[in-house]
Amino acid sequence: MEDQVLKAAQAARQAALRLAVLPLDARNHALLAMADAVARRRDDILAENQKDIDASDRLVAEGKITKAVAARLKLGGSKFDGVVEGLRSVAAQPDPLGQTPWAMEMDKGLEVRRVSCPIGVIGVIFESRPDALPQIASLCLKSGNALLLKGGSEALHSNRILARVLDEAARTVDGVPNGWMTLLETRQDIKDLLALDQYVDLIVPRGGNEFVQYIMDNTNILVMGHRDGICHTYVHAAADPPKAIRLTVDGKCQYPAVCNATETLLIDRAVAPTLLMPIATALAEKGVELRADPEAREIILRHARGKQNAAAGERVCPYQHLLRDATEEDWRTEYLDLIISIRVLAGLDEAIAHVNHYGSHHTDTIVTEDAAAAERFLREVDSASVLHNVSTRFSDGFRYGLGAEVGISNQKLHARGPVGLEGLTIYKYVVRGSGQIVADYSGPNARKFSHRPLPC
Amino acid sequence: MEDQVLKAAQAARQAALRLAVLPLDARNHALLAMADAVARRRDDILAENQKDIDASDRLVAEGKITKAVAARLKLGGSKFDGVVEGLRSVAAQPDPLGQTPWAMEMDKGLEVRRVSCPIGVIGVIFESRPDALPQIASLCLKSGNALLLKGGSEALHSNRILARVLDEAARTVDGVPNGWMTLLETRQDIKDLLALDQYVDLIVPRGGNEFVQYIMDNTNILVMGHRDGICHTYVHAAADPPKAIRLTVDGKCQYPAVCNATETLLIDRAVAPTLLMPIATALAEKGVELRADPEAREIILRHARGKQNAAAGERVCPYQHLLRDATEEDWRTEYLDLIISIRVLAGLDEAIAHVNHYGSHHTDTIVTEDAAAAERFLREVDSASVLHNVSTRFSDGFRYGLGAEVGISNQKLHARGPVGLEGLTIYKYVVRGSGQIVADYSGPNARKFSHRPLPC
Repeated sequence: MEDQVLKAAQAARQAALRLAVLPLDARNHALLAMADAVARRRDDILAENQKDIDASDRLVAEGKITKAVAARLKLGGSKFDGVVEGLRSVAAQPDPLGQTPWAMEMDKGLEVRRVSCPIGVIGVIFESRPDALPQIASLCLKSGNALLLKGGSEALHSNRILARVLDEAARTVDGVPNGWMTLLETRQDIKDLLALDQYVDLIVPRGGNEFVQYIMDNTNILVMGHRDGICHTYVHAAADPPKAIRLTVDGKCQYPAVCNATETLLIDRAVAPTLLMPIATALAEKGVELRADPEAREIILRHARGKQNAAAGERVCPYQHLLRDATEEDWRTEYLDLIISIRVLAGLDEAIAHVNHYGSHHTDTIVTEDAAAAERFLREVDSASVLHNVSTRFSDGFRYGLGAEVGISNQKLHARGPVGLEGLTIYKYVVRGSGQIVADYSGPNARKFSHRPLPC
Repeated sequence: MEDQVLKAAQAARQAALRLAVLPLDARNHALLAMADAVARRRDDILAENQKDIDASDRLVAEGKITKAVAARLKLGGSKFDGVVEGLRSVAAQPDPLGQTPWAMEMDKGLEVRRVSCPIGVIGVIFESRPDALPQIASLCLKSGNALLLKGGSEALHSNRILARVLDEAARTVDGVPNGWMTLLETRQDIKDLLALDQYVDLIVPRGGNEFVQYIMDNTNILVMGHRDGICHTYVHAAADPPKAIRLTVDGKCQYPAVCNATETLLIDRAVAPTLLMPIATALAEKGVELRADPEAREIILRHARGKQNAAAGERVCPYQHLLRDATEEDWRTEYLDLIISIRVLAGLDEAIAHVNHYGSHHTDTIVTEDAAAAERFLREVDSASVLHNVSTRFSDGFRYGLGAEVGISNQKLHARGPVGLEGLTIYKYVVRGSGQIVADYSGPNARKFSHRPLPC
């Protein structure tokens, strides 16, 4: 088994050399062939996906995977169309390779350019969502990187057929080398992969904090972590009430199992008495459990009681069963489920401090009609994506127009936020001269550098 | 002691919040004040530097530091002018903050921008060169990052006065906060620093592979490694002979104690018989030890003997004492000294393979008049800096026109090569909308994204 991963990594290293010089046309043709093949094989792919879905009920019952994980397995419906559309969208992106974002004349006949090039061999370990596989594969191919992939075992049938269909389709195009993409299948494969720092340039683990930390602690390969998304929707005193309701409900409920779903609602004390109730009601109607701090809980209960008293006396609050006390732990928790924590705050300063302290530097939004407050939030919140009057769910490579994403990085080095094509490249400095030596530019009579920026 | 580092890190975290919003004018004024103060205090600084230099002789004799390390201590002469010039050059650089290299309209009234911002708190552990301190401090201040610094203990007197002069000068400018830069002094301080992942965003260790690996293995903080520089000068068959000699001598001898010095000379078999001898002679005249592979050794000895025979018979090769056999280990060694390894190769393919296999992905140059060969070398050598007809010693942030450098990264994530201002920033995605929710952009009747690139 060890040998198998070693061979895949060696093949990937060889393939990477070929991919790095593969013309844009060939890469794009391969991507379109992949899109066509997936669309053509829709029934076969969905049949394999159904096997995973059928098995997931038992895994949930046995407590082996959560409902949230099971919910991500489904490939059918509009999600399948999104897979095909995503492949075409990556083909339509400009070439991320050979770009020169910076160039400088150092002296006459001596120029330096920063030129983008592939990272090399990338290992991606991703969670149960099989629709992530085509995204990752297409981004790597377009950016000239070879790929070793390991998906969740509960999605193995789906991943196997997707990997086979994509690999075969890509290799119908001249120049796409064998071994450009390999699907790894076991946990032991991951362990083997982590030891192959001679062949692998980057590991992208997608998962919770503990998983990412485990990977980092057990490899000498560079790691780009895709960690928890503890995302906040902050309803500022100057929020437009309908927007506050829409954005909170969308952020929490539109797809709760993903990292850019809202986990915490922050609301200003000035508007909580009037605005918290309709937001909480809208969430409760979607079945969302409300983990409220004492102040939020008091407002919700008071308002609910008031309503009941006005009506017919001693009825219980209609969503009492959904109301819980928030603990300190809740502010640090990624639920990935129909649960939201709620905190009432004095205002902008406290909100920014809360987000920076408890958040995971992923995605946070402010709902306000006050432009100055919005600008302060956008500037001072230290997160990869900071949003104004828009749902946290928009934080996504495809929605941003990056084509797709290989992950969302909480790190502050290199690629942060949705990591698309550019995040899968690095640059080299290319210097062209005509025999210059440093000795001439050193010492008391040193020749001066011109340092004139060049057109890029 | 632990408390002291903790307090410095907490102060740095607070300072970072203020630095991040400090206007460009204030940052530039602080840099110019730093340059003026260093120039004004030249005699005091050099007096402290002399204490370190005096002590270093004993340390070398005791085997505690190498001659190469001792050689880096000296601050006087043109190096001092370079320090002042470097500070002014950083002030003259464009603002690295608030730059928007990428922006996209997602839909009408919904825009996303990638905006550069500081990384936060940076810990830099640097080697004996005290002139690195002002470079690092100026780059961090300009890029809005707070700094915790630890230099080599053999440069403590120099570092102390530099840190004090720079800190005091910067803080004469309104808005530069206390604690923006702190000098740490002991090895225990480093250990304490590595545990402070709550306050520190990035560690930059400058040193050999083992040191960088030690740091990586002992912290959860992100590490940007500045490792060995095993740099190659490759003399191609179509090399211009005078350039080959000049570039090799400059690469090896102009400042052998630094990471961009040439450590290995590769030369094509086609030209070795005629060109290796003059190169080896020029190196030997500078006192460089030659670690030659069997073929190179044979050429050098044959040629030297021929010379002697033509003259007066049985004299020994004039630099026999400098000639050694290269071992496999030599191809992987950063000498940082007047030593060079020499290998004779079949041609371009072997040279590229040697550099990618044995090098440290730092800086490599090809000497050739054949443009196609040069382009292949520049494209296929996987190093942070790839050069054509120019000495490896040019691989440097100041020379490239980046103002200065905080280090030279061998990594392939984020900043690679000389890391200047831009390498000390990261971006956030900023999205401004007007109440959009993802639900409207999902499902069968999804609203389409416009994805129109915006002017940056």
